[in-house]
This record gives sequence, C-alpha cells and structure tokens, in this order.
Amino acid sequence: MYGNIFSEDTASFFRSPVREIFKKVDLNSIYSFAGGYPSAETFPLEEIRKTMAEVIDRYGGKAFQYGATQGVPELREAVAARYGVPVERVQITSSSQQGIDVCTRVLVDPGDVVLTSNPSYLGALQSFCSYRADIRGVAHNDDLEAFRADYEKVIAQVKAEGKTVKFLYMIPDFQNPSGESLTLEERRMLVDLAARHGFLIIEDSPYRELRYEGEHIPTMYSLDPDRVIHLGSFSKIFAPGFRLGWALAHPDILDKIYVCKQSLDLCPPIFDQYVAAEFLSSGRLDENLVRTIALYKGKRDLLLGLLEEHMPAGVRWTHPEGGLFLFLTMPEGFDAVKFYDRALDAGVAYVAGEFFHPDRSGKNTMRLNFSFMSPERITEGVRLLAALLCAEISDIQ
Amino acid sequence: MYGNIFSEDTASFFRSPVREIFKKVDLNSIYSFAGGYPSAETFPLEEIRKTMAEVIDRYGGKAFQYGATQGVPELREAVAARYGVPVERVQITSSSQQGIDVCTRVLVDPGDVVLTSNPSYLGALQSFCSYRADIRGVAHNDDLEAFRADYEKVIAQVKAEGKTVKFLYMIPDFQNPSGESLTLEERRMLVDLAARHGFLIIEDSPYRELRYEGEHIPTMYSLDPDRVIHLGSFSKIFAPGFRLGWALAHPDILDKIYVCKQSLDLCPPIFDQYVAAEFLSSGRLDENLVRTIALYKGKRDLLLGLLEEHMPAGVRWTHPEGGLFLFLTMPEGFDAVKFYDRALDAGVAYVAGEFFHPDRSGKNTMRLNFSFMSPERITEGVRLLAALLCAEISDIQ
Repeated sequence: MYGNIFSEDTASFFRSPVREIFKKVDLNSIYSFAGGYPSAETFPLEEIRKTMAEVIDRYGGKAFQYGATQGVPELREAVAARYGVPVERVQITSSSQQGIDVCTRVLVDPGDVVLTSNPSYLGALQSFCSYRADIRGVAHNDDLEAFRADYEKVIAQVKAEGKTVKFLYMIPDFQNPSGESLTLEERRMLVDLAARHGFLIIEDSPYRELRYEGEHIPTMYSLDPDRVIHLGSFSKIFAPGFRLGWALAHPDILDKIYVCKQSLDLCPPIFDQYVAAEFLSSGRLDENLVRTIALYKGKRDLLLGLLEEHMPAGVRWTHPEGGLFLFLTMPEGFDAVKFYDRALDAGVAYVAGEFFHPDRSGKNTMRLNFSFMSPERITEGVRLLAALLCAEISDIQ
Repeated sequence: MYGNIFSEDTASFFRSPVREIFKKVDLNSIYSFAGGYPSAETFPLEEIRKTMAEVIDRYGGKAFQYGATQGVPELREAVAARYGVPVERVQITSSSQQGIDVCTRVLVDPGDVVLTSNPSYLGALQSFCSYRADIRGVAHNDDLEAFRADYEKVIAQVKAEGKTVKFLYMIPDFQNPSGESLTLEERRMLVDLAARHGFLIIEDSPYRELRYEGEHIPTMYSLDPDRVIHLGSFSKIFAPGFRLGWALAHPDILDKIYVCKQSLDLCPPIFDQYVAAEFLSSGRLDENLVRTIALYKGKRDLLLGLLEEHMPAGVRWTHPEGGLFLFLTMPEGFDAVKFYDRALDAGVAYVAGEFFHPDRSGKNTMRLNFSFMSPERITEGVRLLAALLCAEISDIQ
C-alpha cells in the first residue's frame, strides 16, 4: 500500500537467510549447526549476578542515566588497557555488527567498491549491500604471490571502471564462515596493498580470543594502526545479549563514527557497559574465557573426529585453530541450498555456503557451527547429516 | 590525513551542541538547565535490582543469548498490551533515537523533504541532516486554518520544486524544546494533510506519559494507524541507560525497519529487554511513574513560580502541561548563543533555542529543563540566570 515511498537503499536490503531459518524452527527442537550462537553454558550466570549487584552498589543511578556517545570511560579504559591502545582510539559500539554498519555508513557512497574475501560474513555483506556498495570478493589463495596478484587484478579492474575501493573487509582470525586464519605474511601483504592503493582495512575480529591451538598472530591493526579499523566484540568472549563491541581506529576516523552514532542511538547501553567493564577489569572475563576455550576446543575436536569417521568420500572440510565454525566442501554438482529442506525435514540445520559468497559461487559448500550444541547432540547431528549426505552424494556420483 | 575517503553523507553530519556542552563541563558542577536528563532519583534502584535477579532466575542463559531482531516476544507483547495494538505492529528499538534514524534511513533519499515543526528536536534534525534530507520547518500557529494554510504553502512550494515530502516529524505531546502540545483538532488537521498529500507522519512521543495536568489527547497514531509511525521510549518513564524504545506501525513499514535493523545491530540488548518487560508487566513501571510524575510536577510548578518572580519584563515562557522542558523567549535583539559563554562562566547552562530551529531563527530563545536538578538547585539556578538576564536585557533596551 506504500508504493514507492521507501528510500532507494531499501531496494538493496536483503534478509539474512540465517535469521529466516530461526523464524521457522525452534533451534532446540533440531540438530542445529546453523547460526553462530555461543553455548549458553559459557554465560557465567552467578558471576554476572554478582557483578550486576556490584555495579548498582558502586554507580547507583549513574548506571541507568544517559552517558557519553563514545562509551563510559571505565569500559573504554578497560578495552584500551587490554589491547594496548590509547583510550582516544576506543569507541564502544552497540555490537560489532554496529561497528561494521557505521564504518560502511561513514565511508561508502553508492557504487563505491568494498573488497572482501570470498566467502565472507553474511551480516557484513548485508550492511555493504544496504549502502549499495559494489562488493568484490577475492577467494583465498595459498600462494602468497598469486594471492597478491588476485587482489591487484581486481583493484586494476576497479580503477579501469573509474570506481574507488573504500576498504577491504577481513576477518583474519578463524574466519566466518571458513574457520581459517590469515598468516602473518598474508596480513602484511594486504596492509601493504591498502597503503599503496590508498584504501582502509576493516579488521573484524570477534573470534580472535577463542584460539584452541597454535600461536596468536599479530592483528592487522597492530601492523598499521592508522590504516586499519579493528572491530571487537563481547558476544563470543562474554555474552551476545549485551550487544557490546568496540572499534579501535585513528581518532580522525573515530570522530566521524562518533558524530554518526549521536544520531544513530546517542550512546551504547549504560548499565551493560559498566557490567562489561567490571567483568573485564576484575579478571572474571579471563577466568571465564579459559573455561569457554576448553569447552569449545573439546567440541571442535569432537566434530573433526566425527567428520573423519562418518563423512562420505569426496567431502572435505577446514581444520580451524579457533572460533566457532568449520566449512564443508562437497563434490561439484552438490547444491547445499536445494539439499537444505531435506536436511531440515530430517531434523538437522546448517547454513548453505552460497549465502556467504558475494559472487554466489560455493554452491557445494556449507558452514557448520560447533559452539552451540552439546557434545551429545553434535554427535547425533553429524551422524544424521552424514547419512543424508552419503545418500545424496552417491546419487550425484 | 584521510582526505576525501569519507562518504558524502558525512559532510552533512553535525555535532549536537548539547552533547558538546557535556564534554566541556561536569553537569553536577554547574546549574544545568541544559540536556534532557531525567532525575536519577526516578530510577527505582531496589526494584531494578529485584527485577534483574528475577530475570536471571526465570530466563537463565536465554537472557544473555542472541534474540529476535523484532525484540523479545515478552517485551513486544507487554508494549502491545499497554498501547492496545497487535503485536505484529511492534518493533523494539535500541532507543527511540534509533527509531528516528532507522525510519529516516528507510524513507529518505538525499534531497527528499522532511517537514517538521520549527523549532524541533535536535537529535531528529541531526538524523535528517545525516541522510541529506531537505528539512522544512513550520512554526506553530494558534489559528487552525492559518496553521493548515502555512503547511499547504510549504507543500505547494515543495511540489513546485519537483521534490517529494516523505514524512512530517512531530512531537505532539510536551514537545522538545517548546514543552507545548498539539490540540486534537491540530492532530486531525495534520493527519488529514498527510493523507491528502500522500506522506507519512512520524509521531515521536517520549514524554506522553509525563502529564502533570489536563486530559490525555489521542495520539496521531490512533487517528490513522496506517499513516503514522509512533515512536515510544523507556528513557523517560523507566531509565535511559537501557537504551530501549519501540516503534508502532503498519507491518509493511515495520518489515523494512526489521530488515534494516538486521544489518544495523542484529537485535536490541536482550537482558535489558527482559528487565523492561518484567518491569512493565509486573506493574512496577506504573507505580514508579506515579512517583516520577509527582516529582516532576513539583519541579515544573517551582520553575514556573520562580520565573514569574525573578525574570525581567520582556521575557516570556511556555506553560507545559507535562514533559521535561519549557521555552523562554527574550526580547528581539537578544542572542542566546552569544550569551551562553557568559552564563556558563557564571555557572549556569541552558540550550540556545536557535539550535532547534532548522531555519536558524529563534536567536532570542532558550530551552530550560526542569527534570534533572534538585528543587534547591533549580531555585538557585533561576536566580542566577535571571540576574544575568536582567543585566543583559537592560543593556539591549
């Protein structure tokens, strides 16, 4: 009934297929490898309860009043101390999804190019599309020189079209959806590329602290703090229900984000910020993180073992050193979107890999989450999924 | 150092002069009639503490997990029941400021016209500007037919320019900054105008429940629920630190807002929503509202009495029946922006009325808030401000 009253941007909005799945089914009634939900077991309810009482005692009404647009000083300082950056380089965001969105808003005009990996995080692709960015995905290449050349080729093409690359969006640690990380050399190469061609890098890093093996690799931000915007999140190391994250960037960039956030929502939720600050600076967050990492490492090992045991020949998967996801590749000809309804009818859910590919490739891929379900349900879920895949793949072959 | 890397929108961003004041001075060290802060006294700390414990007991980990983009069902249902609308017409927003911003985003392309009162709410003007809307302010006119004619004239002008009015933004109850309300006849006239010319109305209503005298007037939403988007807020009836509000609208409009909010921030803060839902449905919110109204009515009466007693001749002010603000008009030639530094040096703050006027008129006006300070500080603050104004105005005359 509203005809063409809506803005041009709305024509580019697209719905998250992941969130649409959640509307249709109760996650607890099926074996769900879909979504990126942390395990509710990792939310330290008793410590949260204690911390909340302490915050009310300490701050009183201030914890429920309006606050600074940049975030409450206590949380900005706790984040700055944890990541070794000056406090004027910290903006608290109402979730790192907001970090992605507000960065895109202050950087992208319709038609501007955003470079990203192919595949990439769906929520970021939604944001880029909603501002009518021209998204160019570049697949990973294990050969560093070839990887560089792939990017150079796309950038040359963009220039030939008279367009501008505004930023490269990357999740260097335990990527969503692939679970894989960029090596230090790859990070250096991409930062160098950005400097030479004059674009920024958005480093989205919600999983970084969930490492189950191997050594931490320096952030892209640490390689060039004036060119990289680092986005962090409390969702995977504390609890997503607080909707809190942070952006680290040069003050000139944060200033644009700050003014934008004034009209977006004035300030992040105040009480939640004090709770997060208290949780961080008391050491409770780190204690809880140790337990979370042990739990998720066990689930990842379990899932890898089960795939090895049950998956039919011709199916490959990534071996993530951290994070929440791994990525399955089925033989050519398999269609994970078509297969999805059959899987859901049988009681098992995943996200088809195609949705993460800005170029709509990856039809034979799917993302599996291993954080949400219990070990028992992961076990039963993989058996069920593997049985369905065995039947489907023998049909293809 | 970033040259022209930022988006075109950023050139239209402007900083809130109110928030800039807060950066410079500690609100508690001066007599502050600036800002729109509720009194921290109205935050029911003990009831909040109890409610939070109940929410953790009842919902456990679910209170800290991701949730639905539309808001948790319990809060949507509580809001729907309170305002007598179907639940599918309720979207929970991360503050009503977000409601304003997301509505503008889904409706306005650069150059589209937004009609508003002159003066109007600064945070809304920030949002409209940030999307490069063409803002046309219409001053209030006590004569209904003349008021209608003023709007018709602006709309005819917009059409002659080949532009489109997307919506009219109004705060019908105890407006920010004027404190004044629209009569039922004025609301009907504006809704009729919108229907005839095919634009929407955004009814921003954060102060509606803070009525100190007189009868409630029907919302514009109730007059035409398919043409009016109603924005509500928990900030003034519960506590702003939760950053929670709601939008009531036709499901076709809410659907655009829903998809937009997926990429903005996925969902509103979950724990805070359960606390608000529990506070609302337990009746605690209404009990607290009775106390809040009594407190603010006393402060409003005090302020009105003090102005009568101390203000020099030639100063006029509004007599709000509710809300948080009243509006002062000084003699022609007075400049409230210039006068501001002198007032601040003497220890008293207000917001210059000019900032609320999209056409930059209203140089001789200022907004006074009466919710934030204690009665004692209101008394001393008015005496100080009046003494400064007496000196200044006798200079002008």
